[in-house]
Amino acid sequence: MTNPILTAYNWSPDKGAGLVRDMRVRWALEEVGQPYDVRHLNWGEQKKPAHRARNPFGQVPAYEEDGLTLFESGAIVLHIAEGRPGLLPEDKAGRARAIQWMFAALNTVEPVLWERVIAKVIEGDKPWTKDRLPAIDARVHERLGELSVRLGDAPWLDGAFSAGDLLMVQVLRMLGTSGILETYPNLADYVARGEARPAFGRALERLRAGLTGAPPADWPY
Amino acid sequence: MTNPILTAYNWSPDKGAGLVRDMRVRWALEEVGQPYDVRHLNWGEQKKPAHRARNPFGQVPAYEEDGLTLFESGAIVLHIAEGRPGLLPEDKAGRARAIQWMFAALNTVEPVLWERVIAKVIEGDKPWTKDRLPAIDARVHERLGELSVRLGDAPWLDGAFSAGDLLMVQVLRMLGTSGILETYPNLADYVARGEARPAFGRALERLRAGLTGAPPADWPY
Repeated sequence: MTNPILTAYNWSPDKGAGLVRDMRVRWALEEVGQPYDVRHLNWGEQKKPAHRARNPFGQVPAYEEDGLTLFESGAIVLHIAEGRPGLLPEDKAGRARAIQWMFAALNTVEPVLWERVIAKVIEGDKPWTKDRLPAIDARVHERLGELSVRLGDAPWLDGAFSAGDLLMVQVLRMLGTSGILETYPNLADYVARGEARPAFGRALERLRAGLTGAPPADWPY
Repeated sequence: MTNPILTAYNWSPDKGAGLVRDMRVRWALEEVGQPYDVRHLNWGEQKKPAHRARNPFGQVPAYEEDGLTLFESGAIVLHIAEGRPGLLPEDKAGRARAIQWMFAALNTVEPVLWERVIAKVIEGDKPWTKDRLPAIDARVHERLGELSVRLGDAPWLDGAFSAGDLLMVQVLRMLGTSGILETYPNLADYVARGEARPAFGRALERLRAGLTGAPPADWPY
């Protein structure tokens, strides 16, 4: 089999913090030891027909393997995890619960954090943002508080490290330097534990090495 | 095997439209012909310890089957689809693409529609909502336009009806009576095609029959 191809940006909207969704796929590939090639897109190429054929929403990542083309980071991570040991428990119930945490990361936790990103970044200069933030932060804290209680003293969400933890850690990393994560010491430790994994380090290093481009100087974010 | 148990509300925040996330699971169960029992929660019970043990985020649905307890509608639908024919293609590539559409519905389309629901319902009385809506609607239209192009003249997103279509139709139904969906005739037809499926009808009928409770009179939504 030839190496799968990951499509990612050669530019970073987050100064190389590794918050763009290709990082989820890179980390998964490193965890299972799957070599891969990277197709880098210049700024703007994500919205052109060649990439739309890979991802109709004009986003990264896309993933190609043996004639199969996939988009959606969650689906790609699950596909990688299903074919190789390391990211899903072997027992059926444990596997279902790990997948449950994948969906929880992307459908229950990420939307409330993303709402905050939109408010701070995309609507950062709007007159209403200051007044909206308390309610947004309340929704963020509600979710984080629940997650913190559920995690408790455990190192990972359900037994050994899984694809569910991988996605949850990446989603929590969106909080960046806001200081919010640090108000939940067990969640901050959880994220640090994820970031300390050698596969995470390799993924982030390779991501950064690929950042040879940049968005236009007048890009507002 | 005893029937699986679905946990749902006995009250509706949407006048029985079937937009609460248990509808996704009900529809999937009806599609595969899996009988199920329902545990109904009164208003407020979702945040109490007994239900938090099933779902740490205090939401519905939860699902119990043979000693396995799952939350997250997407994960439950996938679990149901994996164990029974009808909602995922049998070939590996087709299966991966159907799962890709499940994640696309929940992680790419739902968040932008949910943002609109928050603006209209939760922040409906805020002074900034009128000024924010154009940008929110622009994000909604960007996603819907892309989805409309990708669907084209096809009846479903990728071959036969799948769990990906089921989740996408349910997510698009969140647009309700806004009139937005109708500006994409192929998407409106797509949703109507989903709603015309006998399994959808059975699921909605049973959901409505279970609505014997109500939220408190002073509930603001």
